[in-house]
Amino acid sequence: MKEKKLTYGMVGGGPGAFIGDVHRKAIGLDGKAVLSAGCFSQSFPLTLEAGKKLGLEEERLYRSYTEMAEAEAKRRDGIDFVSITTPNNTHYPIAKAFLEQGFHVVCDKPLTTNYDEALKLEKLAKAKGLLFAVTYTYTGYPAVKQAREMIKNGEIGDIRFIHGEYSQEWLAEPVEQDPSNKQAVWRTDPKTSGISNCVGDIGSHVENMISYVTGLEIDEVSARLDKMVDGRKLDDNAVIMVNYKGGPRGVFWCSQIAWGHDNDLSFRIYGSKGSISWRQENPNYLKIVKKGESLTIISRGRDAYYDHPASYIRIPAGHPEGYFEAFANIYSSFITALEIKKSGGEPSMEQLDFPTPVDGAKGVHFIEKCVESSDKKSAWVKF
Amino acid sequence: MKEKKLTYGMVGGGPGAFIGDVHRKAIGLDGKAVLSAGCFSQSFPLTLEAGKKLGLEEERLYRSYTEMAEAEAKRRDGIDFVSITTPNNTHYPIAKAFLEQGFHVVCDKPLTTNYDEALKLEKLAKAKGLLFAVTYTYTGYPAVKQAREMIKNGEIGDIRFIHGEYSQEWLAEPVEQDPSNKQAVWRTDPKTSGISNCVGDIGSHVENMISYVTGLEIDEVSARLDKMVDGRKLDDNAVIMVNYKGGPRGVFWCSQIAWGHDNDLSFRIYGSKGSISWRQENPNYLKIVKKGESLTIISRGRDAYYDHPASYIRIPAGHPEGYFEAFANIYSSFITALEIKKSGGEPSMEQLDFPTPVDGAKGVHFIEKCVESSDKKSAWVKF
Amino acid sequence: MKEKKLTYGMVGGGPGAFIGDVHRKAIGLDGKAVLSAGCFSQSFPLTLEAGKKLGLEEERLYRSYTEMAEAEAKRRDGIDFVSITTPNNTHYPIAKAFLEQGFHVVCDKPLTTNYDEALKLEKLAKAKGLLFAVTYTYTGYPAVKQAREMIKNGEIGDIRFIHGEYSQEWLAEPVEQDPSNKQAVWRTDPKTSGISNCVGDIGSHVENMISYVTGLEIDEVSARLDKMVDGRKLDDNAVIMVNYKGGPRGVFWCSQIAWGHDNDLSFRIYGSKGSISWRQENPNYLKIVKKGESLTIISRGRDAYYDHPASYIRIPAGHPEGYFEAFANIYSSFITALEIKKSGGEPSMEQLDFPTPVDGAKGVHFIEKCVESSDKKSAWVKF
Amino acid sequence: MKEKKLTYGMVGGGPGAFIGDVHRKAIGLDGKAVLSAGCFSQSFPLTLEAGKKLGLEEERLYRSYTEMAEAEAKRRDGIDFVSITTPNNTHYPIAKAFLEQGFHVVCDKPLTTNYDEALKLEKLAKAKGLLFAVTYTYTGYPAVKQAREMIKNGEIGDIRFIHGEYSQEWLAEPVEQDPSNKQAVWRTDPKTSGISNCVGDIGSHVENMISYVTGLEIDEVSARLDKMVDGRKLDDNAVIMVNYKGGPRGVFWCSQIAWGHDNDLSFRIYGSKGSISWRQENPNYLKIVKKGESLTIISRGRDAYYDHPASYIRIPAGHPEGYFEAFANIYSSFITALEIKKSGGEPSMEQLDFPTPVDGAKGVHFIEKCVESSDKKSAWVKF
Repeated sequence: MKEKKLTYGMVGGGPGAFIGDVHRKAIGLDGKAVLSAGCFSQSFPLTLEAGKKLGLEEERLYRSYTEMAEAEAKRRDGIDFVSITTPNNTHYPIAKAFLEQGFHVVCDKPLTTNYDEALKLEKLAKAKGLLFAVTYTYTGYPAVKQAREMIKNGEIGDIRFIHGEYSQEWLAEPVEQDPSNKQAVWRTDPKTSGISNCVGDIGSHVENMISYVTGLEIDEVSARLDKMVDGRKLDDNAVIMVNYKGGPRGVFWCSQIAWGHDNDLSFRIYGSKGSISWRQENPNYLKIVKKGESLTIISRGRDAYYDHPASYIRIPAGHPEGYFEAFANIYSSFITALEIKKSGGEPSMEQLDFPTPVDGAKGVHFIEKCVESSDKKSAWVKF
Repeated sequence: MKEKKLTYGMVGGGPGAFIGDVHRKAIGLDGKAVLSAGCFSQSFPLTLEAGKKLGLEEERLYRSYTEMAEAEAKRRDGIDFVSITTPNNTHYPIAKAFLEQGFHVVCDKPLTTNYDEALKLEKLAKAKGLLFAVTYTYTGYPAVKQAREMIKNGEIGDIRFIHGEYSQEWLAEPVEQDPSNKQAVWRTDPKTSGISNCVGDIGSHVENMISYVTGLEIDEVSARLDKMVDGRKLDDNAVIMVNYKGGPRGVFWCSQIAWGHDNDLSFRIYGSKGSISWRQENPNYLKIVKKGESLTIISRGRDAYYDHPASYIRIPAGHPEGYFEAFANIYSSFITALEIKKSGGEPSMEQLDFPTPVDGAKGVHFIEKCVESSDKKSAWVKF
Repeated sequence: MKEKKLTYGMVGGGPGAFIGDVHRKAIGLDGKAVLSAGCFSQSFPLTLEAGKKLGLEEERLYRSYTEMAEAEAKRRDGIDFVSITTPNNTHYPIAKAFLEQGFHVVCDKPLTTNYDEALKLEKLAKAKGLLFAVTYTYTGYPAVKQAREMIKNGEIGDIRFIHGEYSQEWLAEPVEQDPSNKQAVWRTDPKTSGISNCVGDIGSHVENMISYVTGLEIDEVSARLDKMVDGRKLDDNAVIMVNYKGGPRGVFWCSQIAWGHDNDLSFRIYGSKGSISWRQENPNYLKIVKKGESLTIISRGRDAYYDHPASYIRIPAGHPEGYFEAFANIYSSFITALEIKKSGGEPSMEQLDFPTPVDGAKGVHFIEKCVESSDKKSAWVKF
Repeated sequence: MKEKKLTYGMVGGGPGAFIGDVHRKAIGLDGKAVLSAGCFSQSFPLTLEAGKKLGLEEERLYRSYTEMAEAEAKRRDGIDFVSITTPNNTHYPIAKAFLEQGFHVVCDKPLTTNYDEALKLEKLAKAKGLLFAVTYTYTGYPAVKQAREMIKNGEIGDIRFIHGEYSQEWLAEPVEQDPSNKQAVWRTDPKTSGISNCVGDIGSHVENMISYVTGLEIDEVSARLDKMVDGRKLDDNAVIMVNYKGGPRGVFWCSQIAWGHDNDLSFRIYGSKGSISWRQENPNYLKIVKKGESLTIISRGRDAYYDHPASYIRIPAGHPEGYFEAFANIYSSFITALEIKKSGGEPSMEQLDFPTPVDGAKGVHFIEKCVESSDKKSAWVKF
């Protein structure tokens, strides 16, 4: 008679991994799904070690993701969805395997390393009628959702100009020359990171954020990708001029050599009737200026927010919500939609408020076009 | 063979309750303890309803806290600790009942409504060798722990002056006259709230925070409690001058009529060699000024932090941590200490980094002394 | 046929002096009065040296202020007003001498070292029909004037609580033990500074600012004056609880041992319908919160400002105005009123927007009452 | 025997003019030069009116700038320098006329409307041995000078990336359609404003600021100039990618349609060892981050500043200096250099710390190249 909670499995996220634990914490915060199966590592002993610590039954710890997908598909009490938190270049085959076995999927970003694979996953999920979320965390912030609603409702008029930024300092030195700095090593190596490091890792977050908040589609880009540190093999800084369909213009700056910035994702959006801006490092506030009025700072609070963004708030204003809550909001949208689906309903567009393979594919496309433009000496490249 | 996780029960936190859910989320974030029993409401049907939603077995849902304490004590797989999230005036008997049955306890603040009861709980827990945490959330912020370590290490020299503040706006209007505003009704009614509203609810947070960060003990206070809104029965604003043992001085301001403030808890501490300040509404940063140097802003990041506070960080700097993470840190300290105890060890002072009944008793004492001083036209009252 | 500008003389402000030059610059900014006579030092050679540098005629450089007052009174082209920028304890006789000779006076703050003398100057100026300004600079900021108008117009309702602060760090060490630090030596010595250092020097600025902005009158104070640095003879830190006539309450904190603060004068005023706050170190902005609305930040700009404060703006918003402009505004009010008087008119209350001996007397009174309260262990002392 | 102060004349700045009065106030603040002659308007009656108000002798009020240049050159007590504050397109002939008559010149920015004329003025001043300052105000801020010294001294290492911005909102609506808005009318009209409005008016300030602070020279630009408001004839928004000689990269954004910004000039400069940033709207602070260290905020204060920038401070830290003081610093450098020259000396490079025609010419060149690039669909254009 007790309600059965949703269960999920995880691929990746074993000992020493970072983002897998973030996924588990984000799910744990709301407690609406229980981890029940896993293939946490390519090494089975490590999967066993992690699984025990996490309190899983040994029979649901797997040697490979294919074994896991097949075995869980056969179980009566098999998982409801899988979370994929492995390195980027493995997302495609793993996601494909689970989709084919009929599982809903949550996958870390970037979705794949090329546009074609991203499109394939999109098609496959659609064909199978399965939910698929890509964890672009930052769109999970309630303030970001509020900005989106305000723009949708015309509060700043027609968008004219967008300034997007994601600045970091962690690659300001040639830290990849220290082999123990694995994060730096793989990010800056074309073999593992693909055609771009900085635009790929963080520029794509700017693209996704602006796309989410404004609903605009990019028409063309003119980009200059820089390698600022001696010996670096991929871009660590980039400026991208953007022309959107219908007239709006923008500029993105992303950088990993910007001393003083940690994860300084921000947007400033200027319309015909006002402007709105937000910064990830102080995410509970929106700055609004309307034509002829003074600057107003809207805090996360039910009165200032529209209903939809307000529904993502867990605690009243003045008690800051942060990154984990934003991450949990991606899962909370996904799980709510899944519950509706499982109970025979169909989630509304508003309820499907999480990034999908379409968004993931857009991100990969964006990266490719920026690199192409930069290679052509910043020529404008059409989308 | 899988590791058995700790289990806990909850008293309070049924349908419509607020803080119980915050406790569950805070525990869920790290996933180190599983909710297994509960008496969520005085109404058993409501307890059943909540319990089912939370996925509990019916046999572990109880009609009363006494029944729960006794039954769980008899079970082999009984809970490891209980979380008490009921109204203030019930904390004492509930905590007592569980302590007497040998359970470790986490209890919401304020611990009790008078000093004597707080002392009794303190003694009882000690006598039984049980852990007892009081959830003064705000000391769970890593930046607060870092401030404490810096002061302990003499980085700002001997403390001279402290400015503490907790300002809110939610009682700036006579909202208690609307009976549906239950929070306002009980907070402003002496029958349910005791001798003080504002000092009791938020002034005590200032007292606890300063006590935690500085280690100072109050010698005497001179207070003026104000009723600023017509018809209000208890204080909604207060200024408290504080003399600490050994010479330091301070002033606290707490207010519920301060338009523009939500939960604006802050401290600024001035020593002989520097100063340090922090604000809860932007909790990931500390402002430090050292003699002859410019203002430095330390972000939550492993390099700037001492080991102990750094151990409470879940995600690198630039990704904000907020209120839930602070709350979870109280539990994480408590659970870690409990695990050590259960495996036969004895947690160190550093590991016992959570508020205890001693702190709870101090808070109650503080409230009583402030009211006494205010009643004597701000005479200095000794502790 | 060219218009004759007003001329002024100065007492004090010779070589090495600081504030005299600030007065000259403040007047020079608008260029509405020309320096024409002076007694810049007790040493005549130094007066000569300064006078030459300033381009004055030798015949209008004087050996004493009495000589100057008499001689200028006899000249056809004698000065229109005098600026007194000498040490505090000399203000009274100098101001008296010039008033008696019929000169309008501008005098640095604090006006005198005791209440009686301040009242006498007030009476004398009134009796003679002369203008008398005291340069409490900070009320010259347009944003401060705007705050005053907003409060007058009821925009934040009835005032309930005021938090006033003036914090500095310059006396955080025993710098007065270095005889070459003259400023520190005289400020901390009762012989030259009177009964109070910190309250006298900066606490009085808080009192004056709040009085100007709110129009409230103090009913009683309860103060604790601290000597935080070993060997210090006068207060360097103070907390003052204030009860205003009619019900409003406040707390002032002033400190010279607060590492990290330079001239951190600020106010936060909470009314029944909103709040308003301002900080001298970033003086071009007001923070406004109205009942049920979000925080608004009003910049110095004609649209957001009422006419009277807007009339003190010299340059559109976005180009910061600072301390000199505030200082110049005191003079600009004074000179405008003087021009009206000289052309036979009578300046309106609004035009007389500068601090007067009444304000100076209030300041001296405030200092005396705070010291009295502190001496009586913070007893409430009536005004 | 009294020291003769320098005297100056002014062309422009008559009734209703804005910037002429700013020049007079900036000079008046320090009082080191006295206005003695003028041709304030093309209408002689208006010149007479202005001159009388300013206290000038009628014989030194002129019908034309040529008459003024000739007449003053013949006088024994002729002016020492002239300040030109007329519309942009008249700067060239007026400056030329005064240079040819042997006068030192201060001229408002932009120096001329094309590169050639700017170069000619530069040559002429050099040939005649005359000082020539262009009032790019913003480089007068002490914090800007401090940033420059810090970069020169290698404190942030080799420069890698620069983010420059100047954002405003005043043209966010088609305000030029109201003929009474003269400022908007002439700025947006190619006939009076030349080939660019936004880049010309404010983009050039970014270029000048970065050039001053870093000493870098632009190698090539890729620009996109936008017309965001319907019916607008010239650019009101622009993004400019910049490649500097020797490798550093940058991006400038300037905009007049950015709701919420007044005169939001800022720079952020990232080097191999640290970063430094500054914002004109809060100009007394520099943000510094050094490799491995936390953010430090340096206030205008003698201890944190190098000697040269410190020499431009008029009042200790905590008392904000603003736009007029920055403006006055351009004049103070110019006048100091002039005094040295007049006393037979030769000012050092450090003393010649004001913008010159070389800088003015660079600004004009920059505008031309940006327009060229934008016309070629953002092609990179060499300097």
